[in-house]
Order: sequence, then structure tokens, then C-alpha cells
Amino acid sequence: MDKQSLIALIRQKKSFLCVGLDTDLAKVPQHLLQEEDPIFSFNKAIIDATLPYAVAYKPNLAFYESYGWQGLRSLDKTLAYLRSKPEPVFVIADAKRGDIGNTSARYAEAFFGAPEPERRFDAVTVAPYMGEDSVKPFLGYENGWVIVLALTSNKGSDDFQMLNCGGSRLFEKVLETSKVWGSDENMMYVVGATKAEMLADIRRIVPDHFLLIPGVGAQGGSLEAVVRYGMTRDCGLLVNSSRGIIYASKEADFAVRAGEEAEKLQRQMAAFM
Amino acid sequence: MDKQSLIALIRQKKSFLCVGLDTDLAKVPQHLLQEEDPIFSFNKAIIDATLPYAVAYKPNLAFYESYGWQGLRSLDKTLAYLRSKPEPVFVIADAKRGDIGNTSARYAEAFFGAPEPERRFDAVTVAPYMGEDSVKPFLGYENGWVIVLALTSNKGSDDFQMLNCGGSRLFEKVLETSKVWGSDENMMYVVGATKAEMLADIRRIVPDHFLLIPGVGAQGGSLEAVVRYGMTRDCGLLVNSSRGIIYASKEADFAVRAGEEAEKLQRQMAAFM
Repeated sequence: MDKQSLIALIRQKKSFLCVGLDTDLAKVPQHLLQEEDPIFSFNKAIIDATLPYAVAYKPNLAFYESYGWQGLRSLDKTLAYLRSKPEPVFVIADAKRGDIGNTSARYAEAFFGAPEPERRFDAVTVAPYMGEDSVKPFLGYENGWVIVLALTSNKGSDDFQMLNCGGSRLFEKVLETSKVWGSDENMMYVVGATKAEMLADIRRIVPDHFLLIPGVGAQGGSLEAVVRYGMTRDCGLLVNSSRGIIYASKEADFAVRAGEEAEKLQRQMAAFM
Repeated sequence: MDKQSLIALIRQKKSFLCVGLDTDLAKVPQHLLQEEDPIFSFNKAIIDATLPYAVAYKPNLAFYESYGWQGLRSLDKTLAYLRSKPEPVFVIADAKRGDIGNTSARYAEAFFGAPEPERRFDAVTVAPYMGEDSVKPFLGYENGWVIVLALTSNKGSDDFQMLNCGGSRLFEKVLETSKVWGSDENMMYVVGATKAEMLADIRRIVPDHFLLIPGVGAQGGSLEAVVRYGMTRDCGLLVNSSRGIIYASKEADFAVRAGEEAEKLQRQMAAFM
């Protein structure tokens, strides 16, 4: 999906909500464990219930990988299910990849290069530590977005991202250096909602890039602060909520409750637009 | 495998060779494509031919993921095959993972937490950008090693790893800060062979940690320089070669030629020990 289509989708749905699919079999309603593919059954129900309120979905690869290749097969089915919907939806592989050039090229192929269009993601999250040639291979696909980690939502983000590197903090260096590797048409950045007050500094460096904002909800970030410091004329935000939506209930009503939580966030978002 | 067993294995085999399994169906002998699982067939032949000369294997996850869940299934079979050998072998998942704590915990489970011992890796490579809580969950498994990226072998390593952060370069900050998260009994570092002259600086910070050294061979690093600046009393090195061994020939003799290349490196290593 290109930038203009993403902006149009956000305006049409009055939502910049991304639903994080961190699917954990220990947290899904236990009746689903009887199903042939409980991960897919859970995701399918969550997608059906939340799609009216969301523009994006973000499967977190770690959860699928923890179930071995079978988990990856469930992810594959989930992606194909999202692609089977009549409406477009932006799908992010939250994978935090990054390696030397020839290896990043293979990761890029994994996420963007499938022969079948329904097996291609729109975006993948990438760690910047290995520099330009670790990120560039992901930028070689039409409508394939790279979402570079800038300032993350966890406590450990202080360890390196906040280091003063010759006048700028490391996350600012990452923004300044990497923004010319692509453009705001094929790159976004991860900025944790728990660091919303730093969004003003970030917007000085990347005024037009979309930002993927995790950490609203379970991690304690505030939607209002994110909007105040991070929103642009074109919205410029994808705000992710995972646990707060998908685990709103562990009972038979889990999908209904997920839909309600997604709608609640979408209404707050609509009010800000 | 614990540190003492790894050291014993290195002494017994007079080798600190790690064979990188970057298996690419475009580069394997084309007659293998007739097999039911060409990736596994190739790996199996390479393992049989190189095991006398190697102490470690390092499948590069990107290559497997680029073939979808079926590629991960081939990796699974490869790991089980390595575990079926009567002799111990150190197996590294070269995955460059790292995420917020609850997510890193799931990646750790994927690599170290399988109920079947033959599906557990000995080590996983981890990117440090997200800090302590992104690395710590990998340290919660007995005989599960974390190999943190310090100074990588690619050109892009200059972009951030070499930044001056208050008197130290970022990769030195990573070493200094992270070395207390675990110990030299459960942590190693990636240092590219193309930066061998910096191994002396690195050894001042981590004198006793094992280092995983990629970049010998195809990437241009020198084994002699690595040994001169990086070797410790306990060896302290795992030197990886991927393309130089596994793609020594694309013909029917591919496994024989891979064995010969591995033996050549092992003999050079033995001379240094």
C-alpha cells in the first residue's frame, strides 16, 4: 500500500489504529485449543471483530516462531485471511530484523518477495544497529515499507538509544542518518508511546514520516500525548495496541470485547482528527 | 553446551571452525532440487562432510525464512540431524533478534525452549539496540548462550557502531554495558573478521568472552589477524565461514569440496593452537 492510499484509508475509517496480533495460546480462550489451528482461529475472530475500527495489523513474529514452523504456517494463513477481505488493510511484520546486505536481502524476500501477493506484508520493522547496508535491501520492493527502530517503548531503550553521540542522542543520529536511505514514501520509524514527550524532537528531524507508535495501553503510553506531539497534517501516525484489545476477555465473548476495545480507541482517534 | 565443554571440544578437534549454513536453493547443486526437501538434503551432506573439522554450525535464519514455513521445517530437521550425531556440536541460530522483554522472551522460547532437546539451539545472535530487557530473557536458559552484536563485518557498521558516544565508540559502550547482564559463561559477542585490528581494543573490555567471528573468506577477513588479536588461553574464538565452504562447488562433488575447504581451515587453526 502506498502512502496516499494509507492516508486515504485513515481518513475514511477515521482511525489510525493498528491491532497487534501477539497471539499467545496461554492467553486465548481455552475452548479454542480444540480447534485444528487455534492461533489462526483466534486471529480470524479478532480480525473480524476489529476490522471496522483498524487500518493496520501487526503480527509479532516472536509469538508465531515460539510455536515452531507450525506457528509460521498459522501466520501465513492469517496474512492470507487479511488479504481476502474486500477492504485494503496495512499489514506489518513486527520482526525487528537486520543483518549484512546479502542476509537482509533474504529477510526482505521472506516478507515482501512471495510470488503470491496475498503472502506479502506491507511493512517490516528493522533494527538499525548494523547500518545502511542492513536496511537498504528492504527498500527494494514496490509498496514495501521499512519501519526502523528509533526510540523504543521499553526501559532498555535508555541503555543505548539515549546515549549522547557527539551532540545528538543515538536515536536522533539514527533518524538523521537513515532518513536519506529512503523517503517518507517507503520508510517509517518506531517511537514508543511511553516517550511521547520526545515526539516534538523527533518531528523536527522527520516531519513527514509516518511513525509506528507501540506502547499505548498495557505499556502505559497516552494517546493524547502521542497526538499532541506526533500528529501531522496527513495524520502521520499508526498507533498500535495489542494486549489491551486482543486479551480484553479470555471468555467466549473475547472477539466481541476486542471489537469494543478497538471501537473505543477508534472513537478517541476520530475525535483527534 | 557449557563453556568448559566447548573449550574441550575445540581442543579435541583442534578446530574453532563454525560452518555457516546459509542455504540458498539458487546456489546448491541443481540435481538436489529433485529431492523432497532439497534444503535439508544439502545441509545433511554438508554436515556429514564437514563435521570432522568443525565444532559449530550456524544456520542463518534469513535463508530459511525466505522459503516460508517450509524453510523453517527444513531448519528443524537440520537441527535434529545435528543432534543425532554421536559427537556434541555447538549450534548457533543466527537470527539477530531483540525486542521488548515479553517479546524477547518468546524469541528465546523459540530457540531454547522446545520440549524436545533436539530442537534446542545452543546460542542465538541478538541485536543490542533495545538494551538490557531485550537481551536478558535469552539468558534464562541453562546452556543457552546469547551472542550480542558488537562490531559487525559489513560496511554499514561504520554508521552507528563507530560513533563516538562520550569517549567510547558505540560498540565499546555495548560491550561495557552488556557484559554484566550475563557472564562469559553465557554470553559471546559478534566481531567481524574485517575489523580484526580492533580485536585488541575489544579484548581489553571482554578478555574472557568467546567471540563469534564472521567475515573470514568471502567477506575478506584474515584468520591470522583474528588469531593474533583475538585468541585467548582458552581459544575464545569461533570463526565462521559460510560461502567459502558450502559453495566450494556447485557440482556433484559439492560435499567433498566443502569437506576439503573445512579441513583446510581446520589445519590452519590447528597450527595456531
